Amino acid sequence: MVKDGKMSLALLALVNGHHSAGWRNTASDTDTATDIDYFTYLAQRAERAKFDLFFIADTPGARIDHLDAYSRGPNYMNCLEPTTLLSALARGTERIGLGGTASTSFYEPFNLARLFASLDHISHGRAAWNVVTSSNDHAARAFGHAKLPPHAERYARAKEFVEIVRALWDTYEDDAIRFDKATGEYFDPAKFHPIDHEGAFFKVRGALNIARPPQGQPVIIQAGASNAGRELAAETADLVFNSDDTFEEAKAYYDDVRARVARFGRDPSTLKVLAGFAPVWGESKWEAEDKHRTLQELVTPMVGKQRVGQDLEADLSGLDPDQPVPLDIIPASANQHTRYFEQLVHMIKHERLTLRQLWQRYERGNKRVLGTAKDIADVMEEWFAGKACDGFMVICPQLPVGIEEFADHVVPELQRRGLYREDYSGTTLRDHLGLARPQSRYARTAEPAMG
Amino acid sequence: MVKDGKMSLALLALVNGHHSAGWRNTASDTDTATDIDYFTYLAQRAERAKFDLFFIADTPGARIDHLDAYSRGPNYMNCLEPTTLLSALARGTERIGLGGTASTSFYEPFNLARLFASLDHISHGRAAWNVVTSSNDHAARAFGHAKLPPHAERYARAKEFVEIVRALWDTYEDDAIRFDKATGEYFDPAKFHPIDHEGAFFKVRGALNIARPPQGQPVIIQAGASNAGRELAAETADLVFNSDDTFEEAKAYYDDVRARVARFGRDPSTLKVLAGFAPVWGESKWEAEDKHRTLQELVTPMVGKQRVGQDLEADLSGLDPDQPVPLDIIPASANQHTRYFEQLVHMIKHERLTLRQLWQRYERGNKRVLGTAKDIADVMEEWFAGKACDGFMVICPQLPVGIEEFADHVVPELQRRGLYREDYSGTTLRDHLGLARPQSRYARTAEPAMG
Ligand SMILES: Cc1cc2nc3c(=O)[nH]c(=O)nc-3n(C[C@H](O)[C@H](O)[C@H](O)COP(=O)(O)O)c2cc1C
Ligand SMILES: Cc1cc2nc3c(=O)[nH]c(=O)nc-3n(C[C@H](O)[C@H](O)[C@H](O)COP(=O)(O)O)c2cc1C
Repeated sequence: MVKDGKMSLALLALVNGHHSAGWRNTASDTDTATDIDYFTYLAQRAERAKFDLFFIADTPGARIDHLDAYSRGPNYMNCLEPTTLLSALARGTERIGLGGTASTSFYEPFNLARLFASLDHISHGRAAWNVVTSSNDHAARAFGHAKLPPHAERYARAKEFVEIVRALWDTYEDDAIRFDKATGEYFDPAKFHPIDHEGAFFKVRGALNIARPPQGQPVIIQAGASNAGRELAAETADLVFNSDDTFEEAKAYYDDVRARVARFGRDPSTLKVLAGFAPVWGESKWEAEDKHRTLQELVTPMVGKQRVGQDLEADLSGLDPDQPVPLDIIPASANQHTRYFEQLVHMIKHERLTLRQLWQRYERGNKRVLGTAKDIADVMEEWFAGKACDGFMVICPQLPVGIEEFADHVVPELQRRGLYREDYSGTTLRDHLGLARPQSRYARTAEPAMG
Repeated sequence: MVKDGKMSLALLALVNGHHSAGWRNTASDTDTATDIDYFTYLAQRAERAKFDLFFIADTPGARIDHLDAYSRGPNYMNCLEPTTLLSALARGTERIGLGGTASTSFYEPFNLARLFASLDHISHGRAAWNVVTSSNDHAARAFGHAKLPPHAERYARAKEFVEIVRALWDTYEDDAIRFDKATGEYFDPAKFHPIDHEGAFFKVRGALNIARPPQGQPVIIQAGASNAGRELAAETADLVFNSDDTFEEAKAYYDDVRARVARFGRDPSTLKVLAGFAPVWGESKWEAEDKHRTLQELVTPMVGKQRVGQDLEADLSGLDPDQPVPLDIIPASANQHTRYFEQLVHMIKHERLTLRQLWQRYERGNKRVLGTAKDIADVMEEWFAGKACDGFMVICPQLPVGIEEFADHVVPELQRRGLYREDYSGTTLRDHLGLARPQSRYARTAEPAMG
């Protein structure tokens, strides 16, 4: 169950890629956003490359404002729901982990615990839940709120939410189900543990109606960048996503979260850190750069302004693309993605770019490498060997081509260097990540055998 | 798209069957409750027999009281969550409809709309949602309530819930997605319709982030027996389950709901009625009766008292099995399943049975037939030809054997009589049921073509 010094790899599966113009540059003539065969192909491609995890990001709600910009691509506007999508993918794959996002701000803990426990059974131990608090007012409005609750309240709710879900997953002990046809005992009531939770946000009294998941507990992912987000990860997560774009920042993040983990009395190696990593592969560096430029040129001013405006939490629609962004329209602080907001503020204040230059250069965090397999593997080796992360969340600007090229060119290079597995050695996502299967909180320590 | 006078068939897929002792009598030595391969086999078996629908019942919560009885079987205590289970089954089947229960009392409309829209895409138009208001206090407690809200309030909430879900499913018009790579128009904002709902129970402002489902709207099922339940079915459902156990009652029910449908200004034939039907097949009538007796004898007094006590909403645990049930312990009215409650009260008052006789004879509604393929098909033909229903919800006391025998012996007999399809003629569940694909509420009537 121990990982032998290899890195972990996850694939962020956004329809036609992370880049807002990814879909305009695919070979496909038809929409793949809701096409289960297409997603099965992506997951199988990543599985053939022995990825640890296939990952679906999510926001529970479509934008209803600025449709001139948001109607210009599928991402987060037209997508299959993560738990149903991953359950279907469980039947087209054998080994790869299947992770998806669900928001603690807009789900009931009982329903969510069931969905991921069920996915873990259906996939034979490959489920992961990415715990997010959501960062969009438009999602909040779909659930009866006027806007998003404040950041601190969202994280307090998330913490309580995760506690409840974990307790529910432990309802049945591993050996509770007897299936004793002779006596009629289906399960042992002494190994069945209802909860009676009453907290600041939730009252949950009851028991989960599903046997303990194959992984004991599905893998918990966290991706918050703020202090509250890091604390939640350090206390409860098995896996955390980071999106720093320099080695130094990533290294500082790695050291920071591991120190936090230790402060919660956990072994720091039980929280795995995956760094967001956006590779563009080419036969040569020039080819890779050319691919990137082609994509950037497909970004219209409307979309460019909207992408920057969203993360800056400011309306840029009236501005001249060829002038610098005026400083007085920048809000005092962020309520959504602190990390992206600060990155933009920094670029605006220190680089004196025009708005057009800003949208052409700005990428939401993540290390970007344009180059050959060697160029890409060099950076991955530097980060991994230098202990800035335990592996990478591969974020392809374009799909499916991004995973095809990464699998065919970069993975073999990593394997040649001994940095990446040649094959899976276990069957569950916890096995791939080198994480132990958690004992039930109710399990009695085994008595030493007599004699 | 019009059904040619054939009946519809659905399979109620409770782990090892509807009978509380079904699991004790299977060939299997290991638990199949969370085994996706087992459920895939059941669904494929029903699909080979050309069933319209594979159906998963559900309650969001396990019992935590009377575990001495509830630990004696898997049903509702250990089960895969319906939408994830059905999404996985969508990948192991091609044609059969996939229906599951989800409660309007304990879900958010936005989350539920997404889950079933996603299932409809994943299954290429085979999804159905069974709208229930739940009838268990133990479920209510898992969602922060002290007990179940009153019946009328639950149904008022259900009505509003269904309205919201249907409106969300219509977010995108059928031709909203353009996927125009040249111009960058992914969808047409004029064909994208957010809702702004404010009602007695919910405030939902937003838009569903998924293209219109292949069926336009997934099939809506309703199974309420009360006046409120029938009204909800008549106003909103495509399919309704009935559980009367005599032809006369079923016929009265059929006429009643169709009259209600007409009062809502709908064509009565747009609501299909499936009668609950529990067949036990044998080479001879004696063999079938023997099978049934074997099962009944496996019911322990603890389980027998609990099954009756639950539906009677009374605690029978202290009673002598060999005395009649005292009339003074019967509550004045039911808050859970009115139908079952009344059936029991009738049996107690008019048949003067002992408690043991009561649990041995009592079945939750549904027409039961023990006999040969001819015996079983005779009753089905009588009900169907006599317009007491449009088809049957086949409720096997034991699985998988129940569906195997029904498929191998009863289905061919129905086909011989011209009562049942030889093969699917369409691809969606709406096709199988003979229900038109609903137009989007926003669709403009086509202009007559010029010239
Ligand atoms: C790789 C990665 C994936 C993420 N996926 C999601 C997602 O699916 N849904 C979401 O709402 N937020 C997602 N986030 C955002 C984070 O959960 C978090 O909200 C954000 O980084 C802001 O951090 P903070 O909440 O601690 O301020 C993701 C972040 C990263 C780095
Ligand atoms: C075939 C059939 C399947 C049903 N499935 C469910 C179910 O999965 N979950 C549930 O809570 N109730 C289920 N019910 C119960 C009904 O939804 C309803 O609550 C019950 O018949 C009582 O009717 P009333 O609510 O109108 O009083 C089912 C009923 C029938 C006949």
